[in-house]
Amino acid sequence: MLARSFNNFYRSSVAKQLINLPYKKLATKNQSIIVPTLNQCRHNSNEVSKDKLIVFDTTLRDGEQSPGVTLKTEEKLEIARHLSNLGVDVIEAGFPIASQGDFEAVARIAKEVGPLMTGREKIGKPVIIAGLSRATEKDIKRCYEAVAYAPLHRIHTFLATSDIHLKYKLKFDREECIRRAAAAVAYAKTLCDDVEFSSEDSGRSDKDFLCRVLEKVIEAGVTTLNIPDTVGYNNPEEYGALLKYLIKNTRGSDKVIWSTHCHNDLGLATANTLSGILNGARQVEVSINGIGERAGNTALEEVVMNVHTHPDFYPVYHTINTQQIYRTSNLVSSLSGMVVQPNKAIVGANAFLHESGIHQDGILKNKLTYEIIRPEEVGIFNINLVLGKLSGRNAFRSRLIELGFSDMSDDDVNIAFEKFKTLADTKKRITDYDIFALLSDQVSSGESQRFELQSIQVISGTHEMATATVKLMDKVQKKELVDASIGRGGPIMAAFGAIQRLVNRKIRLLNYEVRAVSEGMDALGKVMVKITDDVDYSEEGEAENVKKSTNAVFHGNGTDLDVVIASAKAYVNAINRMFEEEINAQTGKGRVISFKNRVANI
Amino acid sequence: MLARSFNNFYRSSVAKQLINLPYKKLATKNQSIIVPTLNQCRHNSNEVSKDKLIVFDTTLRDGEQSPGVTLKTEEKLEIARHLSNLGVDVIEAGFPIASQGDFEAVARIAKEVGPLMTGREKIGKPVIIAGLSRATEKDIKRCYEAVAYAPLHRIHTFLATSDIHLKYKLKFDREECIRRAAAAVAYAKTLCDDVEFSSEDSGRSDKDFLCRVLEKVIEAGVTTLNIPDTVGYNNPEEYGALLKYLIKNTRGSDKVIWSTHCHNDLGLATANTLSGILNGARQVEVSINGIGERAGNTALEEVVMNVHTHPDFYPVYHTINTQQIYRTSNLVSSLSGMVVQPNKAIVGANAFLHESGIHQDGILKNKLTYEIIRPEEVGIFNINLVLGKLSGRNAFRSRLIELGFSDMSDDDVNIAFEKFKTLADTKKRITDYDIFALLSDQVSSGESQRFELQSIQVISGTHEMATATVKLMDKVQKKELVDASIGRGGPIMAAFGAIQRLVNRKIRLLNYEVRAVSEGMDALGKVMVKITDDVDYSEEGEAENVKKSTNAVFHGNGTDLDVVIASAKAYVNAINRMFEEEINAQTGKGRVISFKNRVANI
Repeated sequence: MLARSFNNFYRSSVAKQLINLPYKKLATKNQSIIVPTLNQCRHNSNEVSKDKLIVFDTTLRDGEQSPGVTLKTEEKLEIARHLSNLGVDVIEAGFPIASQGDFEAVARIAKEVGPLMTGREKIGKPVIIAGLSRATEKDIKRCYEAVAYAPLHRIHTFLATSDIHLKYKLKFDREECIRRAAAAVAYAKTLCDDVEFSSEDSGRSDKDFLCRVLEKVIEAGVTTLNIPDTVGYNNPEEYGALLKYLIKNTRGSDKVIWSTHCHNDLGLATANTLSGILNGARQVEVSINGIGERAGNTALEEVVMNVHTHPDFYPVYHTINTQQIYRTSNLVSSLSGMVVQPNKAIVGANAFLHESGIHQDGILKNKLTYEIIRPEEVGIFNINLVLGKLSGRNAFRSRLIELGFSDMSDDDVNIAFEKFKTLADTKKRITDYDIFALLSDQVSSGESQRFELQSIQVISGTHEMATATVKLMDKVQKKELVDASIGRGGPIMAAFGAIQRLVNRKIRLLNYEVRAVSEGMDALGKVMVKITDDVDYSEEGEAENVKKSTNAVFHGNGTDLDVVIASAKAYVNAINRMFEEEINAQTGKGRVISFKNRVANI
Repeated sequence: MLARSFNNFYRSSVAKQLINLPYKKLATKNQSIIVPTLNQCRHNSNEVSKDKLIVFDTTLRDGEQSPGVTLKTEEKLEIARHLSNLGVDVIEAGFPIASQGDFEAVARIAKEVGPLMTGREKIGKPVIIAGLSRATEKDIKRCYEAVAYAPLHRIHTFLATSDIHLKYKLKFDREECIRRAAAAVAYAKTLCDDVEFSSEDSGRSDKDFLCRVLEKVIEAGVTTLNIPDTVGYNNPEEYGALLKYLIKNTRGSDKVIWSTHCHNDLGLATANTLSGILNGARQVEVSINGIGERAGNTALEEVVMNVHTHPDFYPVYHTINTQQIYRTSNLVSSLSGMVVQPNKAIVGANAFLHESGIHQDGILKNKLTYEIIRPEEVGIFNINLVLGKLSGRNAFRSRLIELGFSDMSDDDVNIAFEKFKTLADTKKRITDYDIFALLSDQVSSGESQRFELQSIQVISGTHEMATATVKLMDKVQKKELVDASIGRGGPIMAAFGAIQRLVNRKIRLLNYEVRAVSEGMDALGKVMVKITDDVDYSEEGEAENVKKSTNAVFHGNGTDLDVVIASAKAYVNAINRMFEEEINAQTGKGRVISFKNRVANI
């Protein structure tokens, strides 16, 4: 039943959008648009009788709401390209009303990634670009204007339905809630066929009231209904029962696709999502590495690999290119600064390693004794793949494409190749990890950088104050800046002090992390910092003067063989983000990060 | 029924051990030993009708099997003390047969932590110290000799029961498997009343065969039956159904406590464990931060906080001091070098933060709108707590106790206080994070360090080779060593190069990570490295010469305001572990890390 309604839905709303596409006519009247990707499901004998699982990725919306994650447009575009290549069905590209900057990022993703077919041949259609909006006409209109550039697009609107939210946050009653939800969807339908509605805090909403809201929303023409466990309180039994109850008791429920959106506060996001699938959901809202507010969202890689390894258990099949999982995970971690712990399922550094002797022995005897997923299936980087200084541009370029950087301009490839050659002069063996680090660094330090690190020089030791001399190029004022600083916290802090002097700002360091990109004394070091404007501290360091997390936080990345240089690059990168955002704010393009108009909560 | 059998079991086996304890008589004949900790369960109205959940922590066994985690005895002791203080019911302290070093660590934990009652007043008894052993008399006897020092102790023995393991690893048939399992338990019972049996790879074992094995093991007198999903393949429905089936179809199942042991390969360890509880398990095997082989074990904090926040849903209550969760998590992360990702449930840095404006607003209006756990409930560090250079020894000491370092000697407190005063000279505000970092560093760099960093001096920059001069004290040869080295990878790699020269060894750097302990330019930097003996590389860097993960890996920690100094400390710390292990190996005390006799697989 759901499969049928899903296909009907695609024939109606999405197909209409597709019919007029210039680049590829994908659907005909009597043909399902969704083509099962046969060679990607381990056992596909039952696929014909199964529903397709729609993978809705919210890395760029919920993921970007993680504290301190502020992605630049170029970074969002690169992540969106990877997501398209990974085979996700929907990309939630942002929250267009939040600011001019957010609007432009969503619009560029719609324009530039919306039409891409790279890696999607078997899926047979490009990705749907969605934007989020509150349940008001102004929000919805703005959202539409951004996503409409994509051949396939969706408006996603939301409203809280729990009494606790109605009472304390929205301050209106249940009847008004129903009226607003239905009105929002009806308005969105005047702009776009593909409309999704989310009932914020579904997990704590009165079930029968929720059915009434959803019924009205279906009558207004919604095509996807998303049931978020906003606070991450549900367990699989509760969440599954909720889905089941809503699908059973909402009139018209067979006309829509039901969707999950689970938060990981109690470590159950993946289990709740799978429980949703078992109880009728056919769309899952997920993010790469499970990034998102607080303890995060549901990890795409975990849900997909559960379905992948249990083809006879779940009533759905997926069309994700699992071999792209690892590189997409790496890109998101790299650009967002959100590290992945070694014992993270599927994409953690240890996920496929064995320490114990008996296991090792078992593996040698028969891989099946302990291995349920082969590393190749998720595209774990090839640590043994070696490029060296004799490798040519063609070998390099084809490796880039294999790593998912498939839409780079010739200029960008040339810049990357130069960096590769420089690295190859000092580092004998260059692996996928190194190439990936170079590339993600290049994405982060795009044309919009105001300051550029020219040189740095440090002296330090146990018995003396560290001294750093730094030279920056200010591309706006077109001049070189040089200054030195001492630091009690060693050469890196001395360098940060000198950079603060050069940019003439008091900056507070909120976080500092380094990790080696690969093994060896000649490994690249990748530094991630988080900064904010400094506040005054009283001499006593009183608690009330401590920096609150309510101000804008900017992260920065830098990669170099030398950790001191990588640190300075990362610090300058974060400062560039800060300056860019401030200029945007002055010119009306900036995101209002003061937390009033910004961002969503599902 | 289970509650009754559990209490019967305690009255019989454990009570017998307790009866003769000199330090505290805890149990009388007609009194249940298990006292519900009333003020720790949010709603405890149903506790009388509920079973107590036995929390079996395997951080020191399965957790220590994580790649590159090699804990020193002092570190294991500190973790065990924290676990006792946290209120876990059983500590699996190690695998005594693995080596003389492992044996001694388990024995010391049994002696020193086994009798502790700090923080356990409400639980009413000390922690049970368990050791793991394969199903052979030699293993079991060795295990008993180590754990017997503890007032309450347990032998945990295991054998694989899946056909794939029997065929490829054990190479004997099902009948032999039954015979060996029963014989192992029967032998263990001659030494100790409290005996646990695990059927390795239960998840892929034939269910009816498994029932037969377990039946014989029950007849042999086992008191706890553990059902591991060794390969992490099960989902909650499968794992719950397995538990239910086994409990229903194994004769004598009401005589034992059933236990879960779930791996996180598909991100479902917590959900599977909870499903086990819903289907009859009353013990859960878990680890702090979910560390363990591959993608890890089940996170203690997630299981406990699920039970904690759903008191009316799960048929069990817990007696964990949840306020100790965060500091125990920090200690384990610090000493094991296994970082916790920011979006980790319960203990991640972001778990209790909100970025989005609407959420922020909601929180201000009513904390209940988004918060399901208060940070205080899990003892999140007080970032606003400030000690400064005027703080006295008493204020410092009472803070140490609050942070869980409750059993430190006066000497250790004095050493820590001196470090604190030194830090207070440069750092204005000292928070829980700083104190914790100082203390865990002190635990890691205990008396067994052969080399000690005396001084370091570096010069580096973008336009020159980095140079480092390092002075070490060799406490074995009782002499100072000084040398310098250049490094193309910056000052830190130059320092590592100089240290290699001083200790006269070729060492391969496998991993390098840094993180700031707290905010600010004057934050302490904590460095974690992993090293191994170097192997020869051919000039071509061929793939077959790449370091295999089958050799011993050692991690090291170092903390300092200056990242270069912290890095040198961490490197020296790792080298000290390497040298210590080698000397142990020569003197017959060493763990056989060559992966033949070592470690377990459940």
